[in-house]
This record gives sequence, structure tokens and C-alpha cells, in this order.
Amino acid sequence: MTAYVQYYRLVPAVPHVVILGGGFGGLDAARALAGAPVRVTLIDRHNYHLFQPLLYQVATASLSPGDVASPIRWILRRQQNVKVLLAEVRGIDMAAKRVLLDSGGSEGHAAQISPPAEIVPPPAAVDFDYLIIATGAAHAYFGHPEWARRAPGLKTLDDALDIRRQVLLAFEAAERETDAAAQRRLLTFVIVGGGPTGVELAGALAEIARQSLRQDFRAIHPESARILLIEGSPHVLATFPANLRDAAAASLTRLGVEVRTGTVVTEVDAEGVKIGDERISAQTVLWAAGVAASPVGRSLGVPLDRAGRVSAEPTLQVPGLPAVFVVGDICALQQDGKWLPGVAQVAKQGGQHAAKNILRAVRGQSLQPFHYRDYGNLATIGRGRAVADIGPLKVSGFFAWLIWVFVHIFSLIGFRNRVAVMSEWAFSYTTMQRRVRLITGGQLWPGSGKVSGPAS
Amino acid sequence: MTAYVQYYRLVPAVPHVVILGGGFGGLDAARALAGAPVRVTLIDRHNYHLFQPLLYQVATASLSPGDVASPIRWILRRQQNVKVLLAEVRGIDMAAKRVLLDSGGSEGHAAQISPPAEIVPPPAAVDFDYLIIATGAAHAYFGHPEWARRAPGLKTLDDALDIRRQVLLAFEAAERETDAAAQRRLLTFVIVGGGPTGVELAGALAEIARQSLRQDFRAIHPESARILLIEGSPHVLATFPANLRDAAAASLTRLGVEVRTGTVVTEVDAEGVKIGDERISAQTVLWAAGVAASPVGRSLGVPLDRAGRVSAEPTLQVPGLPAVFVVGDICALQQDGKWLPGVAQVAKQGGQHAAKNILRAVRGQSLQPFHYRDYGNLATIGRGRAVADIGPLKVSGFFAWLIWVFVHIFSLIGFRNRVAVMSEWAFSYTTMQRRVRLITGGQLWPGSGKVSGPAS
Repeated sequence: MTAYVQYYRLVPAVPHVVILGGGFGGLDAARALAGAPVRVTLIDRHNYHLFQPLLYQVATASLSPGDVASPIRWILRRQQNVKVLLAEVRGIDMAAKRVLLDSGGSEGHAAQISPPAEIVPPPAAVDFDYLIIATGAAHAYFGHPEWARRAPGLKTLDDALDIRRQVLLAFEAAERETDAAAQRRLLTFVIVGGGPTGVELAGALAEIARQSLRQDFRAIHPESARILLIEGSPHVLATFPANLRDAAAASLTRLGVEVRTGTVVTEVDAEGVKIGDERISAQTVLWAAGVAASPVGRSLGVPLDRAGRVSAEPTLQVPGLPAVFVVGDICALQQDGKWLPGVAQVAKQGGQHAAKNILRAVRGQSLQPFHYRDYGNLATIGRGRAVADIGPLKVSGFFAWLIWVFVHIFSLIGFRNRVAVMSEWAFSYTTMQRRVRLITGGQLWPGSGKVSGPAS
Repeated sequence: MTAYVQYYRLVPAVPHVVILGGGFGGLDAARALAGAPVRVTLIDRHNYHLFQPLLYQVATASLSPGDVASPIRWILRRQQNVKVLLAEVRGIDMAAKRVLLDSGGSEGHAAQISPPAEIVPPPAAVDFDYLIIATGAAHAYFGHPEWARRAPGLKTLDDALDIRRQVLLAFEAAERETDAAAQRRLLTFVIVGGGPTGVELAGALAEIARQSLRQDFRAIHPESARILLIEGSPHVLATFPANLRDAAAASLTRLGVEVRTGTVVTEVDAEGVKIGDERISAQTVLWAAGVAASPVGRSLGVPLDRAGRVSAEPTLQVPGLPAVFVVGDICALQQDGKWLPGVAQVAKQGGQHAAKNILRAVRGQSLQPFHYRDYGNLATIGRGRAVADIGPLKVSGFFAWLIWVFVHIFSLIGFRNRVAVMSEWAFSYTTMQRRVRLITGGQLWPGSGKVSGPAS
């Protein structure tokens, strides 16, 4: 390592690898370049790496944001050839091999009064020799972008805090409501999409209503809340084997979730949702259905698929742009005739592979095609309930849940986060309580002042 | 307890005590009424009770919001005669003995599309027989309300998250900045006010810059950050004995804080602050100086003091309004010729006393004057450094810090929060790391999109 640092100082013209995105793909790419004869710049618009598989637990008040997120520059603090930049990507200038960034934060908070004239804006572009795009995906609303505000999805920490706020506020508003129909509407929760995220959200919401909040209200019975999970295909957890997805559906039903499969949401409006011809009056609608790749791919000038993903070469290169690699949810690639799924393992392995291929290119070697190794799938439904599909092992129930717990604890970054999450889970498991039931951010109700303002 | 519940059901006309505010004063008042023959309604515009003495640790990335806040209705879940309402107080109609609330959250999130016509607004008023006002205080800016946006104060959880965001963003912006003067400005932090909060913030900021962030940056040296603590009086921690406040000032100086006493801030603008005739160019200005009582007192129609507080009778009643009690930061009361300070213990003891006086009134007994018992004062400066002034015990340094740790752990509500805070502190103490260094909420830089939006 020291030897390399010397080398790097003597030869400033080492190739510059720019990585866009500090998620599973980008972070593993940066780590795979540790000690290599390249300079690395990792750019993300958040200062933290997010462990997305546990994000639904932030949205449902079990974990704190700090339990599932770690500062990217802290994770990479000892890797001397990496520089981390907090910035938003505005576009990519392929002719100049340059990433265009937002103009930076020099004006910062002060700009709210008046911008100080003497401050020079920081450089708003970064040149690269190699580029790894790992900017992931956002929600997609089946051609109805207007549903986005009404039916928030779960991709970022701020999404999770918004959902937590909205769910807790629905119970609070119901406690104040005197009209029975309005109360019922406030206590109806619709989750659209029966994949792992939708199943996990529905299970956690059912537990909040039936267990965590049971003693807390005087005018309402939280356990009377109605929780619907809507899935367009015939099954929830459609990618799992038949017996596991049936077990998951049965677990959800036992928790009191109404599982509606083979039916699609045709409207989301102020009142609630429409499923086929049925109107469901619901205050809270959560979106766990479609995703679309990050728009960064658009500035490459190459054809994209319907979900906005970049069709990659087997080497993860972008066709016609040999210096540019795509990994994770923004990358469309087939293996054995099937599209690679949008899961953490595909992103992680892809990031590592792209990094290795760049080092091969630096050394003048030929690049290798990417082979994804599927280690299996896990989904949890609630306290002590999960399904696990790991090679020959296909189990549901408590044992699957233990596997799920250990895999997730083990995958978290940082010893302290592992301890914190483990002790939160031990606490929730034994008391059925959720410690992080805080309504923060934004205004209390529409039309009222910001909650965070001076006392009123 | 069961006997009382029976009684309460048979006699619906038991007196109704309304408590405004779920802070130290309001919560202790509600608890003191447990099992008593009254109905209690506690109203707060947050759903949580906040342990304010540790709020600065949320602002400085040591603790998560969930560690210092607990849902009020969870704290009071077993106290059957209390109903908790999440609402903002609009005013008090003394003629009708009625508290006016915001119109409630029925429209909730849905209102962002279009308000559903059929929903009846919930009752926006609550009648009372007795009223306890414990709505606390907000920041005051010495007649310069325009400084508020530029120099945030630390009263609410959202304040703490805003300050955390702003401090962390300053280092991030400096890492991107290439102009040396602009970088220096980004790495200058001014804290106005040398009371306990200002001292704690300054100490924690110094530790962040010198220890927590030391390895994380490539272009800047976080330890070169300049941290100034400005105090108008001749001493920091002016209410402590002379040897302790000198020890505190020496500790701050050793941590690298520039302590400027006997000097006031005469201007806060986009560029920084003006102290007397000296201009200090600073991106971040934090306010820990003046406070003003919550405006709820204004609707009583009684004279208020300069800080907006209600002058109370010794019984904590409002002069001329025998059914109304004020406790905590909104109450102005002298004891032995000195004004009672705005600290947690005054609020807690006041809340308990107001509750007992109401029960005396219900029973037709005469009310008792309030006597505050001062158990002492503590302030912490940083890792292993504090000052303690507890009766005859006047110590500084590590032993004082241990006292501070145990008093604060012991005072937290909820076993789980105690365990969580203790383990966070054990972690920070040994590693000097701060786990919760997350930039959440709002937009990344002025002019850029909201960080939390779909990927861009």
C-alpha cells in the first residue's frame, strides 16, 4: 500500500476512474480498486451508502436512519486512492470524457439571504479515463407520474422518513376524527406491488396496527386498520418457488393483510385507489410496484430499454463506448436467456467485475464477460416469519427468518451498525414495540405551519 | 386504578384538565394526574416527548432522533385517564374555557391532489375545566428575526437535523472548493451564546473536526476548521461558580475553540457575522443565545414580560384566571428574589405542582405555593470533560463527566433508549467516531433538486 502511494505520487498521470453512485454497485467497484494503480473519484448525491434491504424498517419505525446508512467517505477513509465527492450529476459529455456536476455548495445556507459576490464556484466537471455508472433506479408509475405524490415509493432515506411520517399521521388523524367513514378511510392502507418490498411493508404495517400501537389510542382501535396488498400477477413474491410464495401469502393473511393478486390499480386519486371497478377509500397508498432506471443513462446517447436501462455488452461496457461501464439497476443484461434481476447481489458483483475489467484494460489485457452467481433469495413477512430460496434449501417460517436475520446483520457495513440493528431487533422481537415512531419534517397537517418552526 | 375507571365511566362529568405541551412540564403534570378523578387531554404539535438536554448530540451526529425522543402516547399508554392529541394550538377562548386547535389532518396527504368533499373536519376545539400551559420557549434574536434563517437555533428535533445537515454540508462543500478563502469560510463555525447549549455545541464541533472526520477528506484538513464561541457576558457558563466556568473555558481552548467573551454579535449576514467591529467570514452560524416564550401566552389577555412569559402567582396560576396554570419556560416566577431559570427541573417540578394544585382545587382545598428545589447544574464540554455544581460538590473534568453521563442516562425515558444511548456513548468514547453523520432532508445545494427525489 505504501509502495503504491509512492508510485501514485511520482506518476500523477495514472488513469482516473470516475464512479457515479455509492450504492451496492459503485461502492464495491471502488473497493475492488483499492491499491490499484488508478485514481478513483466516487460521486454520489447522498453522503451515505444506504443498505436498501432494510430501508422498509426505517419506514415502519423499527430502525433509525443511522442504522442502515453509513457515510461513504467514512467507509472508504483508509483507501488513499479514492476521493469522494458529494454532488449531483447533470450529464455526461462523452466527447470530452467529462462528467458535468451541479455548481456545488459554496453559497450554501448563506445564499438564502444574499449570495456573497467574492466566492468562486467550485469546479463543476470531472474528467475521466474510465467511467462506471451505478446510479440505480427510481420508482415508475406505469405512465402515471401524477401518482407519485399520492403514492410514495421507497428508494431513499427521505422516502422512508416520509412514509413513516404519513403512516403515523394517519393514526393520529383518525384519533381526532369523529366521522366513522372518515376514520375508516384514515385507517385504510393500500400497498401496490407484491414483490419483496411490498410484502415486507404490508407485514410490518399489520404488526404496527395489531401490536405496537395496541395500547396507545383512546378513540380508535388501531387493530381495526385495513391493510391491502395489491399485486398484478397471480402471486405475491412471484420469483419464489410455488410453495414459498403460497406460504408467504398465508402468513400475510394470518397477520390480517388482505392480499389481492391478479388485479391492477387503475387509478390513484385524492379519495384512494381504484382496483378494476372497485373503489377503495384510503388515506395512505404506498408504491412498491414499478422501477425505472436513473436518467443519467440518457446523456450517453445510446439506445435505452423501456425501463430506461442501458443495454450492456457482456463485459458490462456500453456498446460503442469502451471506457464506460454500467452496473446494477441501470444495466440491462441477459444471462442464460434471462434478464439479470434488480437485486443487491447483481449490483455488487457487477461493480467488482467492472473494476476488474478496467484494471485489465489499464494493463492492456482483454476484458472478461460478467457471470452473475445467484446465491439465493430471501424475503421476510414479519416477526419470526420469512421465506428462503437458497439453492436446494427452500424453507419458510421461523428458520427462514433466522437465516434472513443473520444474512442481513452480516451484510451491514460497520461493526457498530451490526450491534445496533441486532439489539433493536432483539428489543422489537421481545416487546413488539417500535422505538422510532417519530413524526419529523414537513408541516403537521396541510395548511398548518411547519412542525419544526418556533413554538406556536 | 380499576376502581377509578369504573367511577369515571359512571360519572362522565369529572373535571377535564387540558395540558398544552408534552415537554418536561406537561408530561410530568399528566403523570402526576394518574389515577386521579379527572379526565386529562394532553395536546402537543409533536407526537414525541423530547429529551432536550441531549438534543445537541443529535445535531452533532452522535445520537439518532429516536434515542432522545419517545412517542408521548406510548409513554402514557397505561394511564387510562389521559387522551393524547396531536394538534397545534391556535388560541385560547377564556370566556368559553376552550382551546382552539388547527383543523386537523383528515385531508392529510390526499389534499395535495384535491380535497375529498365528503370528509367532515374533526372538532377543532377542546373545552376545559382546568388548563395547564407548558408550551415552552423558542429562540429569540435580540430584535433581529431576519437572523433566524441564517443562524438556526436548537429547540426541536427538526432544528437538530437541520444543524447536522448544515455542518456536514460545510465540510462537503469545502472538499469540492478550490478557492482558499472560500474554503476557509466554509470551515469557519460561529456559535453565538456561551450557556450550556453553546458550550456543548462548540465542544462537539471541535471534536468532529479534530477527531471524527480526520481521515475522511482528501482536499481539506478538517482539523484546520475554526470554531468560535461568542458570549456577551464576561464568562461562558455564567451561572456556574468561578472555578468551574474557568475550567470549562480552559477545556474549550484546549479543544481548539476560540472563546470570545464580553463581546456581542452585531450583525449576521450572508458573509458571516460581525463582532463589534470585527468581521468574521463564516458559512455556519449557530444560535444558542436568547429565548422567547411560546406565543400561546398571548391569547390569555394578561400582561407578559419582555420575553413573552406569563407572570404567575406563587401557586402557578395566572393572575385573574384561577383555572389556568403556567409551568416551565412560559412561566415567570421569582423565588427568594431570583427568577426561576429555564431548565428541565423547574418545568418538571412545576408540572407536578400544578397537577397537585388542580387536585386540591377539585377537592375544594386551598392551593399551595410552588417551591423549586435546585438539585444542581451540569454541563459537558466533550469526551471526558464536564463541570458539575451539585450543592457542596463543585468538580470539573472526568469525574464531572461521569456524573453527567449517569444523570442523563438515568433521566432518559424508556429502558431501550437508555441502552441505546449508553452503547452509542461507549462506541463514540472508544472510537471517537460519530455514527449518525447523515445528510438528510431538503435539497443538496441551493438551486439543485431535492436530494430525496427520484434518481437524477
